[in-house]
Amino acid sequence: MAEQQLIGALEAGGTKMVCATGYADGMVLECEQIATTTPQETVEAVNAWFANKGIAALGIGAFGPTAVNPASPQYGKILETPKTAWRYFDLLGTIQNELDIPCGYDTDVNVACLGEVTFGCAQGLTDVAYLTIGTGVGAGVLSGGQLVHGMMHPEAGHILVTRDPRDTIGEHSGCPFHDNCLEGLIAGPGVKKRWGGKSAGEMADDPEAMDLLAGYLAQALMTFILCYAPQKIVIGGGVADHTPIVPLARKKCAEMLNGYIVTPEVNDIDTYIVNSLEGKQGIMGCLALGAQALQ
Amino acid sequence: MAEQQLIGALEAGGTKMVCATGYADGMVLECEQIATTTPQETVEAVNAWFANKGIAALGIGAFGPTAVNPASPQYGKILETPKTAWRYFDLLGTIQNELDIPCGYDTDVNVACLGEVTFGCAQGLTDVAYLTIGTGVGAGVLSGGQLVHGMMHPEAGHILVTRDPRDTIGEHSGCPFHDNCLEGLIAGPGVKKRWGGKSAGEMADDPEAMDLLAGYLAQALMTFILCYAPQKIVIGGGVADHTPIVPLARKKCAEMLNGYIVTPEVNDIDTYIVNSLEGKQGIMGCLALGAQALQ
Repeated sequence: MAEQQLIGALEAGGTKMVCATGYADGMVLECEQIATTTPQETVEAVNAWFANKGIAALGIGAFGPTAVNPASPQYGKILETPKTAWRYFDLLGTIQNELDIPCGYDTDVNVACLGEVTFGCAQGLTDVAYLTIGTGVGAGVLSGGQLVHGMMHPEAGHILVTRDPRDTIGEHSGCPFHDNCLEGLIAGPGVKKRWGGKSAGEMADDPEAMDLLAGYLAQALMTFILCYAPQKIVIGGGVADHTPIVPLARKKCAEMLNGYIVTPEVNDIDTYIVNSLEGKQGIMGCLALGAQALQ
Repeated sequence: MAEQQLIGALEAGGTKMVCATGYADGMVLECEQIATTTPQETVEAVNAWFANKGIAALGIGAFGPTAVNPASPQYGKILETPKTAWRYFDLLGTIQNELDIPCGYDTDVNVACLGEVTFGCAQGLTDVAYLTIGTGVGAGVLSGGQLVHGMMHPEAGHILVTRDPRDTIGEHSGCPFHDNCLEGLIAGPGVKKRWGGKSAGEMADDPEAMDLLAGYLAQALMTFILCYAPQKIVIGGGVADHTPIVPLARKKCAEMLNGYIVTPEVNDIDTYIVNSLEGKQGIMGCLALGAQALQ
């Protein structure tokens, strides 16, 4: 029975690898963090951690960009990342060859979305957008019951937003590619650039600062509602967890939509746009993905 | 054999109903337009047209907002449209009860997307965004081989864009809901408001006008690429067909992305963002949807 078999979970992030074992019902048994250094050193440590655990399958949520379509010749490789040592590293292959068990592989944000859909506040829904706002902004999306991949995977953290005239961040934002994208204006680096090194959490008591961030988030929420028609939007990440921007953005988003979208979901916006499972959705989503790989 | 059976196709638009018969291979046999007036009068004429054609199934692409999820209690009804006489009219039910054959039902833009995927330039792809720019802006989306519905259906014509400082349209755009949405700034009513009643086609020789429209379109294309990760974007509708904005927007979109998305598709942007099947994708998509309903 798949539910009784031990499953491995790997959240492969740019700064740390979270390794865990657990079960298909989302229960985590053991959990350990390994620093992300060079690909070889890091993956060797990851493989060693999992080697004698007796796991029957592994679910991997990887930092992007990465190839998540099993039909792609690049499947399981990290793509054009600014972390040059990791470019074109075969993350999935290097792990699967060593552990020799079925592995599921997707982006960290798609896996977090799966975690919310399987165990969290989006249980049983077919169309869900998961957004994380931390050192970067990423979106995982479930559409018609399937995680969205497309030609690569969504990179919706980089959608353009309109600059608030009050914004003092300067010409360049926190994103090296785009001066006016969501990530550049609300993720960690942009926030620190704007407020002299202070984090969003440190600015949480400043109403004007929160109003500024919430306005950018509201623009993005409107775009996600119009593009994905999700049944629920779940928001995680440090910037969202340590500030009041989610409730502020909800209100602003409803004002911007201006009555255009009339659905039971949007009409109940406080349960439509919600905060996430306190950081556990990623590792629990990896367990769900690992359990799927067993089938 | 499904392919030999005659199939009905109905593009149910806000100003006209295009009724056709044809085959699952996309061949159109007969085609006639009926003006859209009151729901009762219009649907009676539509039903009368199809009544003695001997069609085995019907595919309907309807104007929105409309309920396209078969599990919804509102399935097949028009929703909160500005055309008040049509609000909550049971379009699908009124037709299916009379004709008594299997019917497929989706939005006009999703059906046009299906037409491009089945017969047009997006054949065989699994992730495609179809955008029409005419009297309004609408988007139909295929994700992982399925047309996107979600809580209702995408309404991506209304995503916000950043105003070009050169724009003389004034405070209010052509959209009664949003002063800065794509539809309000590039669809027919906004274009006419800005340029003293002139259409986009009449402005097609004015480079600054075309540059303005293309800049808005490019912002939207960037959003669609980042949100949907489509394998191809197909653009139809009068504004796109009668102006050079698609080629202009392609260039601008590549500049805005600024090398962030590196895929074979985006690298070949001239075949990635393309004009559509000259207005036939809607009715051919209805045939494809009707053929699916037979299965």
